[in-house]
Order: sequence, then C-alpha cells, then structure tokens
Amino acid sequence: MRTENQRDMKNQKDSKMGKNQKEPGELKESRGAREQAERRQGDRKANKREPNEGKPKVKVIPLGGLEQIGMNITAFEYDDSIIVVDCGLSFPSDDMLGIDLVIPDVTYLEQNLDKVKGFVITHGHEDHIGALPYILQKVNVPVYSTKLTIGLIENKLKEHNLMKSTKRKVVKHGQSINLGCFRVEFIKTNHSIADAAALAIFTPAGIIVHTGDFKIDYTPVFGDAADLQRFAELGKKGVLALMCDSTNAIRPGFTASERTVGKTFDAIFAEHKSNRIIVATFASNVDRVQQIIDSAYKYNRKVVVEGRSMVSVIGTASELGYIRIPEGTLIDIEQLKDYTDEQTVLITTGSQGESMAALSRMAASLHRKVSIKPNDVVILSSTPIPGNEKAVSKVMNELYQKGAEVIFQDTHVSGHACQEEIKLMYALLHPRYALPVHGEYRHLVANRNLAQSMGVPKENILLMSSGDVVEIGEDSCKVAGHVPSGGILVDGLGVGDVGNIVLRDRQNLAQNGIIIVVLTLEKYSNQLLAGPDIVSRGFVYVRESEDLLDEARQIVDDAVMDCLDRHLTDWGKIKNIIRDSLSDFLWKRMKRNPMILPIIMEVE
Amino acid sequence: MRTENQRDMKNQKDSKMGKNQKEPGELKESRGAREQAERRQGDRKANKREPNEGKPKVKVIPLGGLEQIGMNITAFEYDDSIIVVDCGLSFPSDDMLGIDLVIPDVTYLEQNLDKVKGFVITHGHEDHIGALPYILQKVNVPVYSTKLTIGLIENKLKEHNLMKSTKRKVVKHGQSINLGCFRVEFIKTNHSIADAAALAIFTPAGIIVHTGDFKIDYTPVFGDAADLQRFAELGKKGVLALMCDSTNAIRPGFTASERTVGKTFDAIFAEHKSNRIIVATFASNVDRVQQIIDSAYKYNRKVVVEGRSMVSVIGTASELGYIRIPEGTLIDIEQLKDYTDEQTVLITTGSQGESMAALSRMAASLHRKVSIKPNDVVILSSTPIPGNEKAVSKVMNELYQKGAEVIFQDTHVSGHACQEEIKLMYALLHPRYALPVHGEYRHLVANRNLAQSMGVPKENILLMSSGDVVEIGEDSCKVAGHVPSGGILVDGLGVGDVGNIVLRDRQNLAQNGIIIVVLTLEKYSNQLLAGPDIVSRGFVYVRESEDLLDEARQIVDDAVMDCLDRHLTDWGKIKNIIRDSLSDFLWKRMKRNPMILPIIMEVE
Repeated sequence: MRTENQRDMKNQKDSKMGKNQKEPGELKESRGAREQAERRQGDRKANKREPNEGKPKVKVIPLGGLEQIGMNITAFEYDDSIIVVDCGLSFPSDDMLGIDLVIPDVTYLEQNLDKVKGFVITHGHEDHIGALPYILQKVNVPVYSTKLTIGLIENKLKEHNLMKSTKRKVVKHGQSINLGCFRVEFIKTNHSIADAAALAIFTPAGIIVHTGDFKIDYTPVFGDAADLQRFAELGKKGVLALMCDSTNAIRPGFTASERTVGKTFDAIFAEHKSNRIIVATFASNVDRVQQIIDSAYKYNRKVVVEGRSMVSVIGTASELGYIRIPEGTLIDIEQLKDYTDEQTVLITTGSQGESMAALSRMAASLHRKVSIKPNDVVILSSTPIPGNEKAVSKVMNELYQKGAEVIFQDTHVSGHACQEEIKLMYALLHPRYALPVHGEYRHLVANRNLAQSMGVPKENILLMSSGDVVEIGEDSCKVAGHVPSGGILVDGLGVGDVGNIVLRDRQNLAQNGIIIVVLTLEKYSNQLLAGPDIVSRGFVYVRESEDLLDEARQIVDDAVMDCLDRHLTDWGKIKNIIRDSLSDFLWKRMKRNPMILPIIMEVE
Repeated sequence: MRTENQRDMKNQKDSKMGKNQKEPGELKESRGAREQAERRQGDRKANKREPNEGKPKVKVIPLGGLEQIGMNITAFEYDDSIIVVDCGLSFPSDDMLGIDLVIPDVTYLEQNLDKVKGFVITHGHEDHIGALPYILQKVNVPVYSTKLTIGLIENKLKEHNLMKSTKRKVVKHGQSINLGCFRVEFIKTNHSIADAAALAIFTPAGIIVHTGDFKIDYTPVFGDAADLQRFAELGKKGVLALMCDSTNAIRPGFTASERTVGKTFDAIFAEHKSNRIIVATFASNVDRVQQIIDSAYKYNRKVVVEGRSMVSVIGTASELGYIRIPEGTLIDIEQLKDYTDEQTVLITTGSQGESMAALSRMAASLHRKVSIKPNDVVILSSTPIPGNEKAVSKVMNELYQKGAEVIFQDTHVSGHACQEEIKLMYALLHPRYALPVHGEYRHLVANRNLAQSMGVPKENILLMSSGDVVEIGEDSCKVAGHVPSGGILVDGLGVGDVGNIVLRDRQNLAQNGIIIVVLTLEKYSNQLLAGPDIVSRGFVYVRESEDLLDEARQIVDDAVMDCLDRHLTDWGKIKNIIRDSLSDFLWKRMKRNPMILPIIMEVE
C-alpha cells in the first residue's frame, strides 16, 4: 500500500518546509510526464523497501454529506496541510420552518485557518458548491476545479460580491495540483452536469480516491467517457482508500446513458409535430438541454429558455463552450408570438414542482408570458427528488386540467452510479479501505455491502459520520476523534441566527398559533391599570369563536385577579399562572395547545 | 340503456309513494331469485318498448374524492331520494398546518336532510368511513355495509359515543338494499382490506356501477375473488354509467395477488431463522396480517401485535372471523422476554414512517417495550404513500443505524386495479358513460384514456369535480349545476373553526415568526405610559441578536414618538405606522418578513 506517493509527498513537503519553491496549487506536468516519474519512483521503491518509518496517517474529516444527500464537504489533513473537497449546501428539511438553505459548520477549518490550502471542487451542483459564498467569507482560500465548475462558482461569487477576494484556478482532467503536502489529480467522470471530476488525492499515507458524484456513461453527450483507464492504473499502483458516491447504491444495474434521453426526445418531437413542446428539466443539466436543442433544431423549432437559473446556467455553459446552439435557434421569449405553436420549444425550470419556478407559474396561470394551452405537450425531464413528489403531482394535475399532455416516461436518467458501476469502481481501484460517501445511512450501508461483495474486508469498511476524524494509514483506519459539525441555518440574510429554540417556536406557532395576553400594572401599587386583553393569531376564526374567546378572557381575568388578591409581585409567577390556567382550559375544551405569551407592562 | 331497472325502480317508488310497504334498507331476496325476476322484467321490456316517457335522469353529486386521493363521498339523487356512497376523510396537505384531518362539506345533504336515505359504504378504509362520526352528527341516517366494514365503523362510533344514535345494517355480497327509489346491490371485489364491495345502483335512469376501491385478485387470501360473473351479467343487461377507481390508472399491467406477498414472507422467514422478525404494515390489511401469522406459525414463532390501530383492527377482524389465529400463536408484548429472538415475530404499525407509530418509536429508541437490535430483521410491508417518502427513509436510516437488516422488496402489493384490471372492468360492464372516480386529476385523465381505448366515446366520459351536479340519463350526461363542497378542517376537537385566514397566519408564523409591539397610552391625553416593548417568538435567537433588536426598538420608538407628536389618535393608523416602519427595517436589514403585531393598551 505504501507507494511512491508517500515518498513523493514527503519530498514535496520537505522541500516546502525548507523553502517553498512551488506556488501552492501550481499545475503539475501533464499525465504522460508524471506517469514516467511515478513509474521510476515505483521501481526504486520496489527494489529498496525502507524499514518502518512511523507509517504516516492522513486524517479524513467529513464535515457534511453523510446522514443526508447534500452539503458535501470533506477535509483531508496531514501535518500542517488541510485541503477541503467540495463545499455544498443542503436544502432545509420539512421541520426547518422558514429556512432557505443549510450550510456546513466549518468551525474546525476556522480554527485551523493557517493550514487550509484550498477548496477542491468535484462539480458544479449546489450540494457541492452552494456554501462557498458563505464559507469563503470565513475561510478565504483558493478554489480549484474544472472550467465549467469554476464558471458556475463565479456566478455565485458575483452575486455575493466576492470575485475580487477569491482566488480561482481552472484545472483540466488529467492535471494535478499541489496543495501543501497533498497532490490532487482531477480524473474525468460522467454526471448529470458537465465537467465532473473524481479526485485522486496523493497523500503521504497513500492514494485516496474520491469519486465525487459520478456515473459511467460510455456515450456521453459532451466530452469523454469516464477515464476508466486512469482508475485502473491507480488501482494497479495501489489505492489506500476509496470514497465512493452512494446515492444510487440501493439500485441494481447500470445507469443508462444520457443519450437514451435524447432518443426519447427525438421520438416525442417526431410524434408531436403540431404541438407546442415545453420541456422542464434541471437547469444544471447542460447535456440534457443540449439534446433538447438538438431535437428542436432537427425538427425546425425555435428554442426559448425560461427561468432564472436556466438562463444563467445555459449562458455560462454556452460562453464556456459546453453547449452548442445552432445560430438562429435561440429566440427571446418576447418573440414567441411571431411563431406558431409547432415552431417552438420552451426549455424551463420547475421540473421538481418548485412553486416559484417557471413551469409551476405557467401551470397555475401565474406566468406573465406563457400560459398552458390544450395543444401543449409538456415533458417532465426529471424524476421527483424525495420529498418533492406531491409538488410535482400538483403541477402535473394543473397541466392536465389545462388540457396539456404530460410526458414523463423515459425522459430522464440518473446522474449517479448504480450498483454495477459502483462495483466497477471497486474492481478498478481495488482499495484497501472503503469509506462510502454521499448518502443517507441506508445508502452508505448499501455501498458497504457492495464493497464487501467486491472483496474489501468488512473490517476495512468504515461508515463515517459527519464530524468524525478518521485516521487512515497503511495498517489501520479508525475514528480517532471528533470535530464540530452540523448545519448552520440560513434565513434571508441571517446566517446562524435561527437555531433549535427558534425552530421549536416556529413549529409550535405553525401547529397551534399564538395567544397573547397583555396587561398593564401600576409599578408600586401593583394595581391593574389595563387589560388583561387577549389577542390571537393562527388559533381560531375569531369572529366565529366569540363564546370560546369570552370564556378564555374570563379564565384569564380570574387568574389575574387571583394573583393580585394574593399580592403576587413576581411577574414570572403571574405569567406562569396566566399561562397554565389558559392552557388547561384550552386543552380540556378543544384539545389544542397554542403558544401562550403573557406580557405585563408596568406604568410608574 | 333503459332497462328493467327503471321500471323496477319506478314500481318501487310508486309503491313507496302510495304506501311504503317495505322498510327502507330491507334486504332483498338472494341473487338467484332476483335474477329470475330481472330476467322476466327484461323479457317483457324487450318485447314492449314504451314510448318516450320523459327519460328519467339521476343526479350524481361527488362531494369529495376528486382532485385528490381521499375524502370519498358521492351522493346519488332522484326525486325525493338521496343515497350517499362512502363518507371518508382525507389527511391534511402540507400547507394545512396543525390540522389533524379533513372532512367533506355536506351542506347539500344537510339542506336536503329529509331526502337522505342512508350511507352505503364500500369498504372500511379511513378515506371511505373516517368522516362518518362527524357527518352522522348532522346527517343521522342509517349506515349500510358488509360485516367487517360495519365492525370497523362501530369501533369509530364507540369512540365518538354514537352507537346508540346510529342505525347500522350488515349487507352480504350479492344482496341488495332498497333505499328510496334506489336499489343498491353489493358485489364482491378485492382490495387491501377484506369485505370490499362494488355497488350496482339501480336507478330509474339505469344501472350505475361504482367500483369502490378495487383490484381483481384471482387467488385472494380470504374469501372469494371479485365477482366477475355478476359484473358480466350487468354488462349484458346494460349499464348506464361506470364510476371506476382511478388510483392506479397510470400503472400498466395487472396488480399482483396478495398471495405473492405471503410467498415472500415465507422465503424471508426461511432465510432468517436466527433473527427476530419485525413486520410493519397497514393495520387495516387484515389479509397481510393473516399471511404474517401463517408464516410465523409455519416457522414456530409467537406473534406479538403492537400499535394501537393494529391491535384494534386485528381484534375486530378476529372477532368477526376475518382472520384465523392458531391457538397459542398470539402472545402479549409482556411475554416477549420469555422467548428468544428467533421464536418471535412482531407485527406493528408505522410502515409509513408516522412519527408516533410503534415502528418509529422502536427505531428512535422511544418505545417502552421494544428496542431494535443488530440481530433484527425489519420487513417494511408497504410502499410509501406519496408525501411520506422522507419519513419512511428516516425510519429506515434509524433501523440501519441500530444494525437491523431492512427488507422492503416484494413485500407489498397494491390494493388498486392497474390498467389491465380497469380495462377488464370496462370490458365486462360496457357502460354507456364513464365517470372516473378516486384520484387526482392526472389519475382521472389516465382512466379516461383507458375508457376511450375500451370503446367508450370521448363525449361520454366526464371528468367530474367535487361539487358538480351531474345529470345522467339515457341520452345525456352533463354537469347541470353545483353544490357547496370542499374540506372542513378538524383541529383537535374543533371542526371548521380553522379556515384560510387562520391557516395563512399559521404559515406566516411558521416561516418568519412573530414580533409583538406593546405600548400603553393614557386614554384622554394620549400620553405614552409604558413601552413600546418588543417581544418576539420564532424570529431570531434573542440573546445573540441584541444589536438587531436594539435597532428595531429604536425604529419603533421613533415611529411611536412621531405618531404622538402628530397627535394621532386613530389607533389603527398608529399600528400601521409601527408595522410598516418595523417591517421595512427588517426586510432591508435581513430580508425577512415576520408577522408584526402592534398592541395598544389604554389606561383611563
């Protein structure tokens, strides 16, 4: 397992500690040259194995991306170097009321700021780049990734006014960057967004391969298939650990090629020559959009792109050469009126039923420029992400009600490796250890079962939790400690100012509403000057519940009078008595439990 | 289309209008005798067709069950007779915060109380019987159904103390009841609960067949297969309209027999002889429970039934003879400790991830008597109902984390007819009109497509909406009016006291929390005696947001001072000024929009 890399790394580190001759993040030579060097080192190594020199261990510290789909971020640490793979956000779960998004807790990185060499990003999806604008404000280190990914990150940096302060560097597939004592090589993979990369992280303890999100597409729409040969080569050299995408680990078989969707599009376009066609898909799926444009061009249709994120991603992809739009094909939404239905295609956001996205607004007749008509064919080119099923159904029902035909069969393929692809990755890389990543616990378990079936011994498979500090070396792989981790809630412009107590209040308010009891007391005499008044929100229809509210008022009056008669001056006690008596009454009377908030004002 | 039934009905009605010789709801003769009578009438009819006598029309009035899965209830009206098929509830959608359940608006029935002859119930699921305890309090008419269904209804009546006031009558498959000018025949079908029935409703305008929820199971676990011969017979006679279950109309093929699940259970039991087995399924799926018990018995295991609704349904089913439990097989949960793991099976609720159900409590270590152990095999014998996917995943993750093995493949079959079964129903009944029921709009559309493919002319297929009054006769089928319909929200003991305004408040509170601004004014001088004070809930961590709250306080102070300086005495205006200035500040500062509630107290 100890390979040339260790030595390679060690040399690098030594040189850096002496005098840093290389700029961190400098691109290494192309693969050919590098391979020769590796081979030479490997040969030397094989001939002259050194005695035990303290077996280096690298730390792998997932700060998110486990126990959940989303918020992927993992730190790798050795000595005075930390690199961070991905920096994603997650979307709030149902109980996070009012929260816009969730970003990882990077306390550990902040505490070790001087060690952090950079963010290495596998691809441009929100769950891998979305937290960057927030985290970069605290951990301002360079960001490395492929061209399209950097392009999408730059869109975010512009929005947050961070372009000037953030160093960025584009890395090509096959190239490596040096970051402290790590070398990181970008390896071509396929995914539902172009320019995805797996990372081979050369550490002093050995090679760790992180797949990022991946699938293996032998016939990708854009660029090359996943670089299976490089994976095989690394496997041959010896891989310390594989950190493999688990998202689809419970699905048997092989994920179909993106091209299969293009064939479906062609068939649908051929069959519906007299309809307007609207296709909803993920904005970031550039290859999908490419195929829609290809079908449109083939069938002489003009294309309108609609929806903020769709316009933005397609703009970036087109600028950077990741999408080819034949001249004259794209028209502005305002030009729609100049064409007949059968001459146009709309590509739009909203395939997940998001209520504010273009498709939902069209379906609900809230879109200012497009309404759904009986002659429309709507293609939903996605499957609902768990939790979105009902929202998608709602949009479908509305589309049908407007008379549209809705097509959703064979119009989507996943971007994630199914079981056979995951097995292929294990077969090529033959890792000593397996550290499944990206997924809920059940997905990690499924990945573990696959690893085991591929010959990784059970004791060499570790299901990590966020915050674990995993120490991994030639002879062992174990959780050696913990660092702070978890989600920081973002609500509007507030980051972290909403936490459990506030959420619990929101949940209570959401379930039962609130009753406010106000009264004014004279400070010295404790005499009741005004109130108690009762105001409620989210509790009952006030106008239709007068009797109930009268009774409640009486209960509160009695409670207050009782307190004053007893000359209670501790307002905390008075509030408790009000709260308890009203709460008792409401529970007995209607089995409800609104938040009760007594407020006492004092007049001097 | 005009058949003997009309005359049959007419005779019945005439006799009733003259002198009601039959008790309403009296059971008719068995099928053999009835068929003979029908045949005689049919023959007469064929020979002597009467001239146009005003072509009777019957009204079909769905009060729920369309645009949604759940809350099934449909009225059939002719002259002075109304019968109501089913009386179900639905579960609240995500935006109905704090709501426990939703029942149909039966204003139309209340307005026509003297016409309503009874509720005819197709089967014992909540979405067909659940609203009865609420609706019977306003529309107290007899309830007719099969034995198990009546048994399950009685459980509800007992809970609501309605046993004495509610007339109930058990009807067997093949039997008919007379209700006003309708005759209703119960026909055997299969479903995911025993004793389900389709209804042939003999009306003066012709026969309307309502399938209820159904599937066709040639090898049911309990009782007979669906009575295809009777459906065929009716089809031969001539069916005016078919109201067919649409739930699975988008699924191709044929729903598998319930017995296939039993085979899976046997295989799992055979393979896991040294594990404890826990099976979670729907409490109402008596046949499923039967098969678990059968496997347990075969493999010498004792069975524990856990979860309130499971215990209740199994109790009723066992009492009424719908489930056979071999003596000594059932043990109390307290006896678990007397047996080893491999000697026991737990049958439990919670297969939908319901947070308060037994399985979720076991998975979260909150169950007082059972904790999940690494040696456990948990079978999820159900598929998530749309909307429950995330909750089910959560429970699965927790089970895996406790080391249990979770099995969910081939452990469930649907209770609803897929496309081929629906087609079979159209083939047997050959209805003139099709009125698809039970489903969201997209399901109704799919059912329409099937009806059309089976030869029902497009113009003879009507997609109804709740509240439509559909007039249907030999020559026409159209929406002729509308009646009130919709969902009444039940929150705790309150029925209908939470509506849109209250829900909107709850949503706002849930998203953003509330800020209350209180101040006390002297009544005549309008002098500020106390406050303004600011109290918030569900907004921000108060302790960590002192600066923000100080600024907010200053904004409010300024607004109040401004009002007083201007000698404003209109409290409404003062409140608006406070609200607007604070709201502006918070939006600009943090892009949040909490509910702002100014309260002014007055002291004389």
